[in-house]
Parts: sequence; structure tokens; C-alpha cells
Amino acid sequence: MGLDLKLDVANGASSIRRPIVQVRGAAASNREDQIAVEEPLEIRLGGMSLAVTMRTPGHDEELVAGLLFSEAAIASADDLDVVARYPGPEGERDTGNVINVLLRGDVTAARKLLRRNFIAASSCGVCGKSTIDAIGQSLPPVTSDLMAPASLFGRIARAMNEAQPIFDKTGGLHAAGLFDAEGRLLVLREDIGRHNAVDKVVGHMVLAHRMPLDRYLLMVSGRASFEIMQKALKARIPVVAAVSAPSSMAVQMALASDMTLVGFLREGGFNVYAGAHRIVSDAAKSPDQSPRRV
Amino acid sequence: MGLDLKLDVANGASSIRRPIVQVRGAAASNREDQIAVEEPLEIRLGGMSLAVTMRTPGHDEELVAGLLFSEAAIASADDLDVVARYPGPEGERDTGNVINVLLRGDVTAARKLLRRNFIAASSCGVCGKSTIDAIGQSLPPVTSDLMAPASLFGRIARAMNEAQPIFDKTGGLHAAGLFDAEGRLLVLREDIGRHNAVDKVVGHMVLAHRMPLDRYLLMVSGRASFEIMQKALKARIPVVAAVSAPSSMAVQMALASDMTLVGFLREGGFNVYAGAHRIVSDAAKSPDQSPRRV
Repeated sequence: MGLDLKLDVANGASSIRRPIVQVRGAAASNREDQIAVEEPLEIRLGGMSLAVTMRTPGHDEELVAGLLFSEAAIASADDLDVVARYPGPEGERDTGNVINVLLRGDVTAARKLLRRNFIAASSCGVCGKSTIDAIGQSLPPVTSDLMAPASLFGRIARAMNEAQPIFDKTGGLHAAGLFDAEGRLLVLREDIGRHNAVDKVVGHMVLAHRMPLDRYLLMVSGRASFEIMQKALKARIPVVAAVSAPSSMAVQMALASDMTLVGFLREGGFNVYAGAHRIVSDAAKSPDQSPRRV
Repeated sequence: MGLDLKLDVANGASSIRRPIVQVRGAAASNREDQIAVEEPLEIRLGGMSLAVTMRTPGHDEELVAGLLFSEAAIASADDLDVVARYPGPEGERDTGNVINVLLRGDVTAARKLLRRNFIAASSCGVCGKSTIDAIGQSLPPVTSDLMAPASLFGRIARAMNEAQPIFDKTGGLHAAGLFDAEGRLLVLREDIGRHNAVDKVVGHMVLAHRMPLDRYLLMVSGRASFEIMQKALKARIPVVAAVSAPSSMAVQMALASDMTLVGFLREGGFNVYAGAHRIVSDAAKSPDQSPRRV
């Protein structure tokens, strides 16, 4: 069948082609398929291994910057001295899967904080916290006067579909996109992990010295979980829209933090789960009256 | 809008009803929606907090048993003394979100192992491992003479759709189901986390003293990641089928462990990414010849 060959992933590729057997009804045929790459990324702090997370290669520096920001290990790009790929010692194969970080300031304190919060948090946002009480948010609610016309959401859904380069080919990647109030896409990132895609988007803006993100909307391709809302809140994003369903904790967190949470966003419509006060009816935007809330 | 009320989740509910604003084109209306519950679960070992993971309430004992088995902290149900909900001290509110575990044998060693492997693993399977080398599997390949007729896959896809009780209502839950070679569903579990749904299925079988699972097929509702394959391999499951795409590492792991990996499984067909030798053509199963491989 030619299926059982070793699969070698080229450095940095975000998808690869693989032979498959396609079965349709009673017929089987040999085909090729495009598969999303999932590879481990080791994050080193000052040369010492800190954590390993699974991710899709690409924009790794952004992923790490976003993670460090989400976990409050850095307040801005100014706290980062170096965040760069580590090619390995002379003569060894560069896997492309190690990022080395040097921080300015107290590295021991940062390492302690990260060891506690972030080794696990890279995937679930809370599993590293040692009691349920530790999950409680200590961040203040978002403050933003951003108002979004209802028609904006259909437009960002369309823009996201058009801009997502790999998803259509593999069906295996999540996407996160950051939009302004006029529906312009600032940055889109894809990853096998929904949370990684969001970290890459936030990390991109951190490295570009464009924080906080209180004038922007975040759209994610899958479901909205607690973890996504947590990352958005840290970045001060007032509006989060998801293609699929939100979880109860995502809704709870949006309510507690005055965030707007939209789910089941398609080009033809969406559901609002929290913070509907930021969404204004398009029909009401005639010159002689102020926008009417939906 | 009636949206910004506190959301109180009843103990143990896996979904709740919430008021939402539904926007369709230019029209907005007040509706109710069913939302999947996501709540933290604290796992205690001998009374001490070990880890917190996000999950959908229900079958928590199975989730914990499956996690402990996946992380090699227990070899069978015999190693478990107690795995039970901890109602909290007298007079305090029972959140339903704490499971207490008592192990037979060396608890200190188990705690050390779990602290290292499992605090993070509850969500990503590898982020707690401190270097990339630690990800490499040390488990031997699966050994199973299970052969699956191609038509079996369409039947388990249909059975899964019919049996999945909550997904249709919330769109927010993943499901995992364990099937025998005749396509009979043994156990189906749902959770906001794909990995949790698999842990619940495996934990169910651990607690029922029915390990190893080398005669069964595992079906998952979403994508097949490295982590899902890792849990299946530990349980010795030879065939994993996913509704959506597999990742490159899932394919790599299936190849290295002689597992069969099926993706994009729908009632009308599927793709085989590894281990096609276990799938036999239905047409070839005439009495005078042995099954022909696809």
C-alpha cells in the first residue's frame, strides 16, 4: 500500500503530502492527502529547557512571545532580550523545534513563575494551577469603547475564510485572526492548537509593540473555551467571535470581564452570548440618530 | 438584553440553557441556546492537590482513572484504592469538582511521576515533559489480529451519530466511542476536551477490569492528534478512526506503533493514513477465500 513508510517532516513546513488509501463505498484507491504538521516545540529560558508544547511550525517566535505575555512573564517586547530559534550545537541536525529566550531583568523570578503557571498553561490555560481557586481571574474587566455594527461580523467571517491559507487543504488547522473595527484583517495565524493560533496572533502584536489590543476583535475558527477568553482578556481584546460553540466557562468569563462573546459565526448570522451592548444595528445608523444597540 | 446575568452551573450538568441574541442578516431576536459545560476538576492524591484540568462534568471517576492509566501511575484498577468525588468539609458547598484518589502501594513514587508527567499531560500529553527527547514513545507497537471490514467504519460512524446525546444540542462537545469488531458500541463519552472524552472511555474500561483494549476500535469526533494516539497506544487499541483530519505526528505515531489510523470518517467513506493491512474489502469475503486487504 505504500503507506507504512517513515514520515519525515521537513523543517518548518506547516503541511506535508502523504500517500493515503481513500475508501468510498466499496471502492478503495491510492491517493495523496495534505496533512497538517504537528511537532513539539521546546522553549528554553536562558539555555535551560522550560517546557515542550505541540504546535504547527511557523511563527514560533510569535508563539513564544504570546505565551510569555499571556502568562505575565513579560509585560511588553521591551522585557525580551532574545527570542530566537536555537539551531543546536555545531554538527548536530537543526530540528527547527527549539526556541531560546533571554529576558531582561530577573530571570530566576520569571522562571519560577513560568514553571508554576506556564508549563501546563501552554495547552490548557489552567492545568498547572494547583487548586481551583487559582483559576479565578485577577484581571480587571476590559475597558473599550469599541462598538461593532452587526454587519461587521459577516464580513470578518468572509475575510477569515478567504485568508486562511492552509485550513482548506488539510482540514486540520485552527486559525485565529485579529480585525479592526472596520473589519480589516491585521494578522492571521494557523496552528494545530487553537490556543497556539491565538498565542501567535497576540505574540505578533507584542513583538510589534502594538499592545494593548483594546480596539480589536479576535476571531477563532473553532470553539471558544475558557482558555481563549483568558488569553483575549490578558491582551485586553473586547470582542471574541468563534465559528463554533462557546463553553459555559467562556460565557462566564465574558460576563465577568465585560467582554463580547459571539458564537456560531457564519457569513449569514451569529449568536451573541455576552456583551451584546457593543453590537449596534446597521439599520439604525442613519445620520440623524446614534447607533441603536441590537 | 438579559444577557449579562451571572451564569450559575448546576452541579454535574453537562449542558445548560442560556439566553442569547440571535442575529440573522439584519434581524436580531432573543432566544435560548444550549451550552456545553466547561468546569475545572481538581484531582487530589491522598488528600493533596495534584492537578486541575478543565472538563465537562460527568463520569469524573472514569476521567481520573483513564488519566492515571495513560500516565502509567496505575497498571490496573487493582492499583486504585479509592477514586471518588470529594464533597468538601461539612458545611461547605459541594462544587462537584474535586476527585480524591487513594492508591495502593507507593504513593510518594506515584506522586512524583504524576507531578512530572501528568499535571500538564491532562491537556496536551507532552507539555510537562521537559525535553523533546522525552516525547519519544517507549511503548512497544500494538499487537492485535483484529481485522476490520471496510463497511464497519460507515456503521460505527452512524452508530456514533445516533448515540451522541449532547453534541447535537450544543455543538460544543467532543465524543469518543469504543467499538468491537462487529461494530457494537461498548461505551461513548463526551467532553469539551477531546482528550478527556478518550480518558473517560479508557477509564471506564480500566474500572471494569477490561484492559487491554486490543480487540477494539476507538472513534473520536474531531481530529486525531499525537495525544489521542498516545492514549490509544497505552490502552493497546489497534484502530483509531477520526471524523476529521489527523496530524502529522498522529500519522508518525501510528506508523511507528503499527496502529491503523483512519481520518475523515463519514458514513459514505474514509481515508486510511496508516495500517491499511487491518482493513479488508467486504466484497472479497466470499466463503471460498480469505478476506482481501484493501
